[in-house]
Amino acid sequence: MSERVLVKDLQARQDGPVSVSGWVETVRDQKKVQFVILRDETGAVQLVNPATREVGEDATPEQSAALALTETISALTHGSFLTVHGALKHDERVKLGGVEVKIATLDIAGEALPETPIAADSSLDKRMDWRFLDLRQRRNNLVFRVQTTLEHAMRSYWVERDYIEVHSPKLMASASESNAELFEVPYFEEKTAYLAQSPQFFKQMAQVSGFGKIFEIAPAFRADPSFTSRHATEFTSIDAEISWIDGWEDVAAMQEELLVTAIQAVADKHGDEIKELFGLDIVVPTIPFPRIPLAEAREIVAARGYEIPRTDGDLDPEGERQIAAHVEETYGHPFVFVTDYHPEIRAFYHMRDEESGLTKSYDLLYKGVEITTGAQREHRVDVLIEQAKEKGLDPEHLDFYLDFFRYGAPPHGGFGMGLARVMMLLLGQESIREVTYLFRGPTRLAP
Amino acid sequence: MSERVLVKDLQARQDGPVSVSGWVETVRDQKKVQFVILRDETGAVQLVNPATREVGEDATPEQSAALALTETISALTHGSFLTVHGALKHDERVKLGGVEVKIATLDIAGEALPETPIAADSSLDKRMDWRFLDLRQRRNNLVFRVQTTLEHAMRSYWVERDYIEVHSPKLMASASESNAELFEVPYFEEKTAYLAQSPQFFKQMAQVSGFGKIFEIAPAFRADPSFTSRHATEFTSIDAEISWIDGWEDVAAMQEELLVTAIQAVADKHGDEIKELFGLDIVVPTIPFPRIPLAEAREIVAARGYEIPRTDGDLDPEGERQIAAHVEETYGHPFVFVTDYHPEIRAFYHMRDEESGLTKSYDLLYKGVEITTGAQREHRVDVLIEQAKEKGLDPEHLDFYLDFFRYGAPPHGGFGMGLARVMMLLLGQESIREVTYLFRGPTRLAP
Repeated sequence: MSERVLVKDLQARQDGPVSVSGWVETVRDQKKVQFVILRDETGAVQLVNPATREVGEDATPEQSAALALTETISALTHGSFLTVHGALKHDERVKLGGVEVKIATLDIAGEALPETPIAADSSLDKRMDWRFLDLRQRRNNLVFRVQTTLEHAMRSYWVERDYIEVHSPKLMASASESNAELFEVPYFEEKTAYLAQSPQFFKQMAQVSGFGKIFEIAPAFRADPSFTSRHATEFTSIDAEISWIDGWEDVAAMQEELLVTAIQAVADKHGDEIKELFGLDIVVPTIPFPRIPLAEAREIVAARGYEIPRTDGDLDPEGERQIAAHVEETYGHPFVFVTDYHPEIRAFYHMRDEESGLTKSYDLLYKGVEITTGAQREHRVDVLIEQAKEKGLDPEHLDFYLDFFRYGAPPHGGFGMGLARVMMLLLGQESIREVTYLFRGPTRLAP
Repeated sequence: MSERVLVKDLQARQDGPVSVSGWVETVRDQKKVQFVILRDETGAVQLVNPATREVGEDATPEQSAALALTETISALTHGSFLTVHGALKHDERVKLGGVEVKIATLDIAGEALPETPIAADSSLDKRMDWRFLDLRQRRNNLVFRVQTTLEHAMRSYWVERDYIEVHSPKLMASASESNAELFEVPYFEEKTAYLAQSPQFFKQMAQVSGFGKIFEIAPAFRADPSFTSRHATEFTSIDAEISWIDGWEDVAAMQEELLVTAIQAVADKHGDEIKELFGLDIVVPTIPFPRIPLAEAREIVAARGYEIPRTDGDLDPEGERQIAAHVEETYGHPFVFVTDYHPEIRAFYHMRDEESGLTKSYDLLYKGVEITTGAQREHRVDVLIEQAKEKGLDPEHLDFYLDFFRYGAPPHGGFGMGLARVMMLLLGQESIREVTYLFRGPTRLAP
């Protein structure tokens, strides 16, 4: 393993013997010379071989080997993985990085079938069928390197501030958020478990456990039958929860700092490549992000001439786009916290402001799409029970959760954020499917 | 939120006004003076109040307030969360950190019921019933701070070496490892999904996708009816997979370096506290870890006088303890790679050595308990199909997986490691339940 040189390291290396491994992107099999573009996880390099098309009957072993190599290269299939030993040569005429490798030996590690079932312009659904081939595209590889950087920057932000990472269970005895859209799992002894729709209850548990500040990045599950570009039955949820807050503002302040830190890390590490492959500039947003109460947001949207058809007082997707357009025009900012939602359109555990009766909560919109709900939680068990009842929930079913608040609880709050939505918007993609390793939806469980 | 001072920061602070928040650990309500030990996520501090037991009828407002404060403190319940404003004073006679806070005002944020349902010495099962209270113990809090450090050190190790983080789906159309111990999930339109027993197939997919090196830390699910101290129905699996390896040795070399890095981080950050609370020295192991082929390990165990009852050629738990004892005595090392397992006791996708016929795989034992299986994978699709058939598996059911290897594949391998097992052994605990945030077993789904 030690011998292999990554393509990105070739340029800085002196001419001489070298070994590279990757897969065949293209073969140009000319009469006198053969070129192979070999790609690995770090880049692509040109391999070259002077073709030996025929040898006489009295060929030397070297001549025979040269013929065999030429024939091997001629037969190479697109996507085959191979290792080449050869001679590295710097040559500024070579467009691809200014280096090429003259092939000495070529070992095929895994040969590909000759017909590739998809192309870069195949339909999204077809590409998802062959996602393992689709992911070989440079753009798609970059998506997941960007995601790695984004997540690591977030975790580092938290760890540096003494947050505790938790792994909350995904198998639960009852619903976490609502009884709708819940996957059931037959469990031992005829019991039923449910897949967690969010770590909500368990991240709150960490607060009454005295953990102070926690985070989790983990799968969440919703038996959601929608086919929109923003929904999945399984998604990666980024969650944080903190104690001793005075209101949603403390949660929002942490979240905007977190996002700025993470987007900055992406811009620093991948800015140029994102520009090249996605045609996008990664702009690091300024702090604070604009904040607009929901009622005001609705007025702004109405003044822009859009009438929200929803009657529950919330914004609809077009309303979200309108308010985002307003914020972009007014403040030049891609994010906006929409705040102070009416309790009717919020979960029972959102704390309410005593004066206004509105919840101490927010949605965070990014480029016009909701990526987060955040809130201060109600930690007073009697109030919590009343609010649950008001929503038609049976407090008995919530007893294990209500217990959390019967033995002492600090004021606390947090947010949940969809990783794929952030990635989709950051890279200007049309669907979370483009930025999900393997998408899961109502009609998609494979590969 | 900005006002609050963490307990750990009190000592370095000058005498004067201060605000602290936490929960009541003890109250000593003496006639003339009251002491409260308040704990937050960073430590405990003594609060003090000169008791005002009675005031006359012509009491000043200050005297009445003093009486009210005294009565509030007398009535404080264990575990209540509160905020105290007061005066910080350094006093070397105070054993707890050499500081105390004289209470000016005290606000109860969340009052606890007077009877705490568990004590530190309650049974493990009872403590799991009330895990949110159990986690308030310093030891338990430390467990999850150690875990955070351990995981972050691992992720940083990988990210610094250009690994890509993946989030593989937990909902699958078919089994990942074996058809046994599989949770079924009724899915849309009368389909059935299965919960991933490991990310095995999907981390291999990343290799044929040209990702090179990847990692994932995520939940895995096994419908395992066992009640041992080492098994759970849901657990956190630490997985890595890398391309272009020459054998299991390359995987093992990465894993031992990873573990040393992570354990070093734990020793640096928490060594003293682990010593205090667990009575343990965190010893950073040396590299390389000892390696012993399974056949030799069995001979060593036999020579130690233990006859392994299993007839399949594997080690049993006692055999694992015996070989670990041998390694500890011989090399003074807590880890050992047991290698070269017979194909009969390994998964069909383990690559086999052409000469010996044994798999290119290992188990990693830590203090006598298996924490990992690692291997080079078979990437040649025809060989893979043969090996699957040999295990009685129907290649048709594996077709989506076999496809990964039909369009080109690099040699690759990786490992899966149970986070809770590592934590249990690192901290000298008897059961993974002690180091799992919320344990899930055949009879435990709540809280």
